[in-house]
Amino acid sequence: MYRSKLAASAALATVLTFNPGSLHAQTSALSAAVRVNDHSEPTLSFPAQERDTQRKLDELFARTGKRPNIVWLVVDDMGYGDPGCYGGGEAIGAATPNIDRLAREGLKLTSTYSQPTCTPTRSAMMLGRLPVRTGLTRPILAGDRVRVNPWAGETSVARILSDAGYHTVLTGKWHTGELNSMRPFEVGFDEFQGYYASQKELTQQVDARRYPDLVLDPDMATRIKTVGGKIDMYYGRKSEDERVVERTTSIEQFAEADQTLAKFTIDQIKRNARGEKPFFIAHNFMRVHADNHPSTAFRGKSTAKYPYKDNVVEVDALIGDIVAALDDAGIADNTFVFITSDNGPQLDAWPDGGYTPFRGAKGSPWEGAVRVPGIAYWKGVIKAGRESNGLFDLMDLFNTSIRFGGALDKIPTDRYIDGIDQASFLLADDGKSKREKVFIWVEQNLAAMRMYGYKIMTKVVQEQAQWLNIDMTTVSNVGLAPWLFNLYVDPKERYPVGHRMNAWLASMLAELKAEEATFKKYPPKAVGLEQ
Amino acid sequence: MYRSKLAASAALATVLTFNPGSLHAQTSALSAAVRVNDHSEPTLSFPAQERDTQRKLDELFARTGKRPNIVWLVVDDMGYGDPGCYGGGEAIGAATPNIDRLAREGLKLTSTYSQPTCTPTRSAMMLGRLPVRTGLTRPILAGDRVRVNPWAGETSVARILSDAGYHTVLTGKWHTGELNSMRPFEVGFDEFQGYYASQKELTQQVDARRYPDLVLDPDMATRIKTVGGKIDMYYGRKSEDERVVERTTSIEQFAEADQTLAKFTIDQIKRNARGEKPFFIAHNFMRVHADNHPSTAFRGKSTAKYPYKDNVVEVDALIGDIVAALDDAGIADNTFVFITSDNGPQLDAWPDGGYTPFRGAKGSPWEGAVRVPGIAYWKGVIKAGRESNGLFDLMDLFNTSIRFGGALDKIPTDRYIDGIDQASFLLADDGKSKREKVFIWVEQNLAAMRMYGYKIMTKVVQEQAQWLNIDMTTVSNVGLAPWLFNLYVDPKERYPVGHRMNAWLASMLAELKAEEATFKKYPPKAVGLEQ
Repeated sequence: MYRSKLAASAALATVLTFNPGSLHAQTSALSAAVRVNDHSEPTLSFPAQERDTQRKLDELFARTGKRPNIVWLVVDDMGYGDPGCYGGGEAIGAATPNIDRLAREGLKLTSTYSQPTCTPTRSAMMLGRLPVRTGLTRPILAGDRVRVNPWAGETSVARILSDAGYHTVLTGKWHTGELNSMRPFEVGFDEFQGYYASQKELTQQVDARRYPDLVLDPDMATRIKTVGGKIDMYYGRKSEDERVVERTTSIEQFAEADQTLAKFTIDQIKRNARGEKPFFIAHNFMRVHADNHPSTAFRGKSTAKYPYKDNVVEVDALIGDIVAALDDAGIADNTFVFITSDNGPQLDAWPDGGYTPFRGAKGSPWEGAVRVPGIAYWKGVIKAGRESNGLFDLMDLFNTSIRFGGALDKIPTDRYIDGIDQASFLLADDGKSKREKVFIWVEQNLAAMRMYGYKIMTKVVQEQAQWLNIDMTTVSNVGLAPWLFNLYVDPKERYPVGHRMNAWLASMLAELKAEEATFKKYPPKAVGLEQ
Repeated sequence: MYRSKLAASAALATVLTFNPGSLHAQTSALSAAVRVNDHSEPTLSFPAQERDTQRKLDELFARTGKRPNIVWLVVDDMGYGDPGCYGGGEAIGAATPNIDRLAREGLKLTSTYSQPTCTPTRSAMMLGRLPVRTGLTRPILAGDRVRVNPWAGETSVARILSDAGYHTVLTGKWHTGELNSMRPFEVGFDEFQGYYASQKELTQQVDARRYPDLVLDPDMATRIKTVGGKIDMYYGRKSEDERVVERTTSIEQFAEADQTLAKFTIDQIKRNARGEKPFFIAHNFMRVHADNHPSTAFRGKSTAKYPYKDNVVEVDALIGDIVAALDDAGIADNTFVFITSDNGPQLDAWPDGGYTPFRGAKGSPWEGAVRVPGIAYWKGVIKAGRESNGLFDLMDLFNTSIRFGGALDKIPTDRYIDGIDQASFLLADDGKSKREKVFIWVEQNLAAMRMYGYKIMTKVVQEQAQWLNIDMTTVSNVGLAPWLFNLYVDPKERYPVGHRMNAWLASMLAELKAEEATFKKYPPKAVGLEQ
């Protein structure tokens, strides 16, 4: 299913076609962004909004005496179109009143980009670096052999914030390595409670109805328990090794996992609200990744009644509970909250999958895979009712959160950082995105780039069956000229306009070359998984 | 391109397979609706919301002494996804702040249905009857021969409201007949100012850049002027024959049409606000039907800069202006406003076409063709912030508007009426839709039905080329069993679930039979256009 490591290296090698020297000057006619040094992304510059933002942060610090708390709320595999405020909600059988309210009372981003799959997005958010640089270029699956430790030598946002005086917590799904020295409490989190794998990797070991071949055959049942790795809920912290807090024994028991995890986060909020330290909580829902099983409290609570939909309703309610806990603790005005999903819907699990209005799904470079909900909420700091189609890469959360922690100078300078500090985009009342482009990598393939309203594709992932968007796909090189889409007039990527209707083909190719050049100057690490 | 009239009759005949006698009892196990008489649609019953609604209307009448004004704002060919509040807006390069605000301050419907094309929708709204009953089953095109007068013997909402004491006005596009006795001021409107055809039918006669073959060849230019019928802006009223108020002489001149039309409507609002009579204005925008040409004031005003997008921005601004005129005149609290589109986007005009997240486009039975924006706004009467996925057919505006006019008893009882009085759905604070199902006809084909969250298809319209959704399509019968979709888990109609995952196939077929039976009891009129 995955290429050999030799093939992977070859794939990357083919894109590296020139030796760049300094990267400073490499911008195209289309570009207005400036690269201030070789190891940082080029950014657009808006000095006024930077000043406004710093003033807001300074005033807040003067008033509270503490750096702001930071809460990431990451839903698993939720589609761009699932929340009501993005066109779904009750219209597709699962109302999301809490997410919708936070969008209304905060900043709703309509051009937030993830990586095409789970593990890559999660590691990219943690490190501010593309997965192809650090090694986790595809999801870790049951039985995977991790070849090298992709965390070795890396510096996570949790590490930097912890060092800067934050209490750092990861709740829920980790899925970026479960061996020693890859675990959350070893890479910067002070505490961790959650799971190492995706829902399906857990439930397939106890779900005799859907996976009789795994569960009802004693031999297979033994084997899957071995290759599945850690399937229980763990708690771990820096000062002591992890322990199991809840065994995964049945569908019914696991179905309550997100309730337990939300309680853990809410308890963390309560306990840390009045402490001396600010906190950073990355709360990663297990839901709504396949296989979804409704909890007792939410079974049949959606209009559609399907497990996926019930779980959307539950996640929405839990997001409401977590934000209410910030309010109750009186710290909502000093807490940055960001709500998102790690990638688009996984359609081969349909009907246990989400909704995107866009083309394609999880695993591809199409918008359906990488365009995700993105809501920034900060009571009294982010103006209510804002909406922006400015580009935001989830990797930007790395830099932005570190900025809020006052530790920008702690970001390593000896490696390439793909994230951008977007604090002023999110916080200034009329803030604009400092990001001019988003690169879309599918494993080792630089497949596409969004720049302003345009998208260029040099490789496409094509479905080989109507239903299947991950397993039954192929990665193809585009022919004579890259496909170029205007996402404003063609949000569904149906009509490549190429030379006929777009003047920027050469400029956008130059941008891709400049991206490739960063790998020449800062070579990628070895791929962390057996291919 | 269109079938012969014999073939059309045969197509309808094939669906009429039994003689129903009384239609009263024909509901399936799935149905909860009641048919109170043979000539009306079955409806769901909610007595409490009916009482609430009547009390609201009575109190309003007691306070104002006038029946409420009624304003329909119908955009041409705007996609479901074009307005920001339906997932588009600035995210796809054309912000719609006015439509979004009216949705926030009123009721946003997410399951509003039109007919698949323009003329059918417009005649259905006027008559509360399916086009297949009255004869205008497809758009009137340049040079079409109208075989019989589809208005003969019909009673329009404008006629009923005019008789009930309303001043009735049609502004903008008519497109449901331009010969004598088919014109708006002959079928119930006291005044008319607007055009008889679609934008493209007009601009193709003066647009030498896009249609050099029509405009630059003297012979063709003469012929197209003859077959194109009335291409100028007309004014007509009951007491006098129509006159041309503006000749269509150039792209630039025609590009200002919607500005002129909005001024006419706003002037009507001002003049009638303090009069004794309430008013009914059906304001039909020429935009955003292809071919779009920006007006001087709005050229390049969208983020995307394309004419379609500029025209979305203009329509949105004009909707804001018209509603502001109601406010300025102090009658917003006594005026029912409904904003919609006559069908989904016309994709063969791309990039001069709209955006729908759904499958298919104008002309098909897919959601992309028939699911349209629907916003009900009535200051102080419709509770702000409501959203509903209850079914609403644009034909319901016929009954609902007549209800507001206090003239329900004037709806004819000697013919089948497909519309439903949905006043209580729209006005009660927690109103539910009284409509259980929507039938989707494509010309003479009963192709599909939406019922609750399900959709059944017995005929599908398939694209025969990637780009083309109208001209290059075929209508096919579905094979062994009808296709059945669950629109909640499959909003994009990709996965027919059939017997495997749905228990309602037989019930929904029974509903289709019952619909067909209404034609046995109330035979359709002859098709009004040469096929």
